[in-house]
Amino acid sequence: MEPHVKTIGFGVIGLGRIGAFHAESLQHHVSGARLMAAAVDPEHRRALLASGRSPCALEESVPDLLARPDIDAVVVASPAVVHDEHISLAAAAGKPIFSEKPLADTVAKAEAAAEAVRRAGVPFQIGFQRRYDRSYARAKELIASGAIGEIEMFRGMSCDRLGPIEFLKTSGGIFMDLASHDFDAARFLTGQEVTEVLAIGAVLVEPELATFDDVDYAIAMLRFANGALGVVQTSWRAPYGYDIVAEVHGSKGKVVAEVDEKYPTLLYDERGKVSARHDQFLERFSDAYRAELQAFVDALHAGTAPTPDVEDGLQAVRIAAAATESRRSGEWVKVDAA
Amino acid sequence: MEPHVKTIGFGVIGLGRIGAFHAESLQHHVSGARLMAAAVDPEHRRALLASGRSPCALEESVPDLLARPDIDAVVVASPAVVHDEHISLAAAAGKPIFSEKPLADTVAKAEAAAEAVRRAGVPFQIGFQRRYDRSYARAKELIASGAIGEIEMFRGMSCDRLGPIEFLKTSGGIFMDLASHDFDAARFLTGQEVTEVLAIGAVLVEPELATFDDVDYAIAMLRFANGALGVVQTSWRAPYGYDIVAEVHGSKGKVVAEVDEKYPTLLYDERGKVSARHDQFLERFSDAYRAELQAFVDALHAGTAPTPDVEDGLQAVRIAAAATESRRSGEWVKVDAA
Amino acid sequence: MEPHVKTIGFGVIGLGRIGAFHAESLQHHVSGARLMAAAVDPEHRRALLASGRSPCALEESVPDLLARPDIDAVVVASPAVVHDEHISLAAAAGKPIFSEKPLADTVAKAEAAAEAVRRAGVPFQIGFQRRYDRSYARAKELIASGAIGEIEMFRGMSCDRLGPIEFLKTSGGIFMDLASHDFDAARFLTGQEVTEVLAIGAVLVEPELATFDDVDYAIAMLRFANGALGVVQTSWRAPYGYDIVAEVHGSKGKVVAEVDEKYPTLLYDERGKVSARHDQFLERFSDAYRAELQAFVDALHAGTAPTPDVEDGLQAVRIAAAATESRRSGEWVKVDAA
Amino acid sequence: MEPHVKTIGFGVIGLGRIGAFHAESLQHHVSGARLMAAAVDPEHRRALLASGRSPCALEESVPDLLARPDIDAVVVASPAVVHDEHISLAAAAGKPIFSEKPLADTVAKAEAAAEAVRRAGVPFQIGFQRRYDRSYARAKELIASGAIGEIEMFRGMSCDRLGPIEFLKTSGGIFMDLASHDFDAARFLTGQEVTEVLAIGAVLVEPELATFDDVDYAIAMLRFANGALGVVQTSWRAPYGYDIVAEVHGSKGKVVAEVDEKYPTLLYDERGKVSARHDQFLERFSDAYRAELQAFVDALHAGTAPTPDVEDGLQAVRIAAAATESRRSGEWVKVDAA
Repeated sequence: MEPHVKTIGFGVIGLGRIGAFHAESLQHHVSGARLMAAAVDPEHRRALLASGRSPCALEESVPDLLARPDIDAVVVASPAVVHDEHISLAAAAGKPIFSEKPLADTVAKAEAAAEAVRRAGVPFQIGFQRRYDRSYARAKELIASGAIGEIEMFRGMSCDRLGPIEFLKTSGGIFMDLASHDFDAARFLTGQEVTEVLAIGAVLVEPELATFDDVDYAIAMLRFANGALGVVQTSWRAPYGYDIVAEVHGSKGKVVAEVDEKYPTLLYDERGKVSARHDQFLERFSDAYRAELQAFVDALHAGTAPTPDVEDGLQAVRIAAAATESRRSGEWVKVDAA
Repeated sequence: MEPHVKTIGFGVIGLGRIGAFHAESLQHHVSGARLMAAAVDPEHRRALLASGRSPCALEESVPDLLARPDIDAVVVASPAVVHDEHISLAAAAGKPIFSEKPLADTVAKAEAAAEAVRRAGVPFQIGFQRRYDRSYARAKELIASGAIGEIEMFRGMSCDRLGPIEFLKTSGGIFMDLASHDFDAARFLTGQEVTEVLAIGAVLVEPELATFDDVDYAIAMLRFANGALGVVQTSWRAPYGYDIVAEVHGSKGKVVAEVDEKYPTLLYDERGKVSARHDQFLERFSDAYRAELQAFVDALHAGTAPTPDVEDGLQAVRIAAAATESRRSGEWVKVDAA
Repeated sequence: MEPHVKTIGFGVIGLGRIGAFHAESLQHHVSGARLMAAAVDPEHRRALLASGRSPCALEESVPDLLARPDIDAVVVASPAVVHDEHISLAAAAGKPIFSEKPLADTVAKAEAAAEAVRRAGVPFQIGFQRRYDRSYARAKELIASGAIGEIEMFRGMSCDRLGPIEFLKTSGGIFMDLASHDFDAARFLTGQEVTEVLAIGAVLVEPELATFDDVDYAIAMLRFANGALGVVQTSWRAPYGYDIVAEVHGSKGKVVAEVDEKYPTLLYDERGKVSARHDQFLERFSDAYRAELQAFVDALHAGTAPTPDVEDGLQAVRIAAAATESRRSGEWVKVDAA
Repeated sequence: MEPHVKTIGFGVIGLGRIGAFHAESLQHHVSGARLMAAAVDPEHRRALLASGRSPCALEESVPDLLARPDIDAVVVASPAVVHDEHISLAAAAGKPIFSEKPLADTVAKAEAAAEAVRRAGVPFQIGFQRRYDRSYARAKELIASGAIGEIEMFRGMSCDRLGPIEFLKTSGGIFMDLASHDFDAARFLTGQEVTEVLAIGAVLVEPELATFDDVDYAIAMLRFANGALGVVQTSWRAPYGYDIVAEVHGSKGKVVAEVDEKYPTLLYDERGKVSARHDQFLERFSDAYRAELQAFVDALHAGTAPTPDVEDGLQAVRIAAAATESRRSGEWVKVDAA
């Protein structure tokens, strides 16, 4: 790869856990890009400045950030409920956008955001980092090579530890926040659209979730356009570590994307053979998070379309919303075509 | 264990694949028992006699078999559609019964068979051999010890190669024939009853299955009495070998019963690391099939109740029938209480 | 397999840990054989009779045992230092012999025992049970099929927990007692003779071993007749469980015989993924111990030669003795040809 | 980590396979450093210029490279036989040096190179990249934490594909070229010095190796200063892929550093479960090669001493030379103290 002619100046919207991670990647790991500034709310800004730990210049609003002449592109890492608003502002300003998933917390807002991006014609990438994970990427490669024949069944599972209730209230629910990764993986790995979904859920971990009609265990069954079946299991329970797997059955075999071990080193002690597992997503997918951002930057430099795009983001929201609706109604819910 | 006072004489009803396997176990592997005779249809009897390969004396009807003075107990290994009839005959004759699963191919027949067994008060064991597999037995032991805390989610998967269409026509369907093992494992491992089920299916392997409203891929979602969720995946497709797994998630951990490897020996060659997998159920579960029969014989000698019993057999039929009904209707179907 | 015409009556010499295990196998697991009596010393006899737990009739001497008319064959499970004496007595009495390894604790005694067996012409099998383990047997099968091409390197490892000092004093040393299994596996798996050996050792676990010139850690390098190289690692240290592995490198690949897991079931808890390992040899190799005895009985019934034979037993003693001598001298020691 | 005040300009000596890899790392992956120029021989320079693929400016001699004002530090990636010469030149020029292993192909040259570095007092790092591999680093961490207690046995294995004969002739032999990684790992992981070595070898792959007294299979036994034992197996044979493992036994457990799988994705097809393995060292250790260079650059920026240092490089040469001498003499060879 040739050195980039010009370094792309980035602004990051939101410096929460994932925003801070992306900022750090832009500073130290992504080539061809430079972190210029971030937009955070005034209170957060004061705290960061007081701590002396701000990674970059800080603006108090998204319009202020977008107005800076050194900002060529943005990373949207604000809460899901305002993704649509920030995407629309950035699109209107003509800035290439890398947005965290989900595209929005409702289908209506996701469609509005997608429309804003289409209208502006700006490069857009949605943050389904699993597509850039070595395990998922290799699974895709094997499937695309015909190694397992025709796609017949998909299984995805995501089990993670329960986050703070305040965060969960604005997350869009377990299907939107956690399982949307599996819904995207289902589309990515099978190359098929999900046509309908039926889901169930239960509150077994945190009773307070029931107060805003969310659950902490959920299973969704999927039908794909080619007739294949699918199932997604998800929970806010992971006593032994973050547990992520995708399995695709075909007419000639199956592939399993699964990374069990935190370390490629085994310890044998009085307990037997013990292998530590990944704690959480930023650790499990740290390479993938950097790779997706690098891919976005490379696409901007090359003038090619980044992937997964805004339509992929929209479709995952549609599936997650359908699953949530089905979980509440107990009925099959159709998913609008991509 | 003390040597048995008296050897129990066994009659086997049916000498198809599984019947022949049980007959061979009784001859060579099960202590405290002896194979005396089998009932097979006249044509099969003639063929076996002509071949000189009959493992024992042969009778042409179940009543003839039951009338023999050397028969103390029976193994029912006839087609599922006549299990109820043979169980009722043996129960009426006061013989202890070991019956292959499913108990029957319909709920009505299963209830009649269960009632016949209850009325006769004969010892009865249903052939859910996975309960006697080391992998499942250890999972049960870990769960019972509290190692994973409260039960929150169950997953079972059974993928096997497609059998002959003629056999499948009388099998009761994929949920009755194949997934009933997973439904029993769900009850056995979690210690919870399944209260309702919703299922989907697809014909992706053998179009002829559609002619008798069966499928070759199916997924069922389960709700358990304690609020836990479950999912069972099943298919008549296993290009890489018989694929069986049970996974139980609890509040403190999970256990996975899975035997991947056909041999505890690894081969590294130009393809990389290659591990052959089990071909089919008789091979994967050969030890379990023998262990369940030994447990039945031991219970008869000890005068204790064999397990799993006829109620376990009945309950698995109820779940499988509910899954089949749901697969056809698209609606949730309640499962009658055990 | 046809039912055996006549059941073979067995006498067991010694009812220590392994003798008791073989006796139990003969009683409950081996078909075509029956446990008739055992020879134990008077004190042990009194204790067994007092406990009411003797598995069979008890004689106070080997000659008394051999004189019984119901004894058709013997299992030698006495201490290694008297194997030669008991083998010679049984051979002189014309009884087929199954002997525990090592054949003897010195080369001279092993040669005398082998000569007694040859002269008497009695069927003889030496207890290298790993040859009957599924993992080793499959490795042999793969190698014999040409899957790894020409043999180029062998590695064996046996790590076990330290036994009682009193036992170790009469065991013949770590190479004779523990590593003789690896030396036999080297010959069995490669199909090649060991021509010379150089060994080192260290006392790191139990200082008292030094008082009788034994060690608790040892490594031996081997040269094979075809030019291949080998290494055997062994120790009386296994904090995490019994650790046994054989690895054979060839010109086209390698095979590894290794059974890590005590249970084919995985537990995930707050420690991560935990797999218990086998505790000790009787548990790890229980199936193999029964299979070797069954093979011996089957060979007697069939009139074929049991395997591994007395020459295999002799050759393993020669290699172990050479390794011990080399460990003391620091020099290469040639191994006499088989 | 704060952004570096000044970027360090690097010159690379030699653009063979590993030199080109380091050059690419400096260009694209290592922060705080910049690739300025390389020294290659005139013919190679012409070829690179003609191809238009030179990664940087090219000088025709090491002195010319060292004379450039933009060169702050060097990477020595020339053939092993001239490492000492290039290290001495760079040291005399006062440049920090990152040198590929081995430090030299003989002990005398290694001592001269070490003395040149000591005298000049320049920062120096030897390229034992396994120390920067996640698997080895985690093993070290576990050992240092006391997880396995006192060190009692070490095992290292390196099997790789045979390289070109012309390269092997100047490599210093299999112990110097390939096993020196294991000798360094032995010191790194155990924290103990190797005091003596006894080695054997065989020519089983490439007869031509015998013409310059080298071998393609070799095993070395080690004694450590604390009394622990060790063994290193190595070969120029790897039909199934690059095979690297380190295993350390302690009084309380063991750790195993081993990365089997090329991809964290499993494929199940008609062969069973198949996992591809790493092809060769640049692919298996690509992250480690980048991490070691980053660590060197970070140490230069921080003004701390890089590790492993020139004494580590020297000690690995001493062990490898002792192993080679022992392999030829058949005698134990002492290793001079570090």
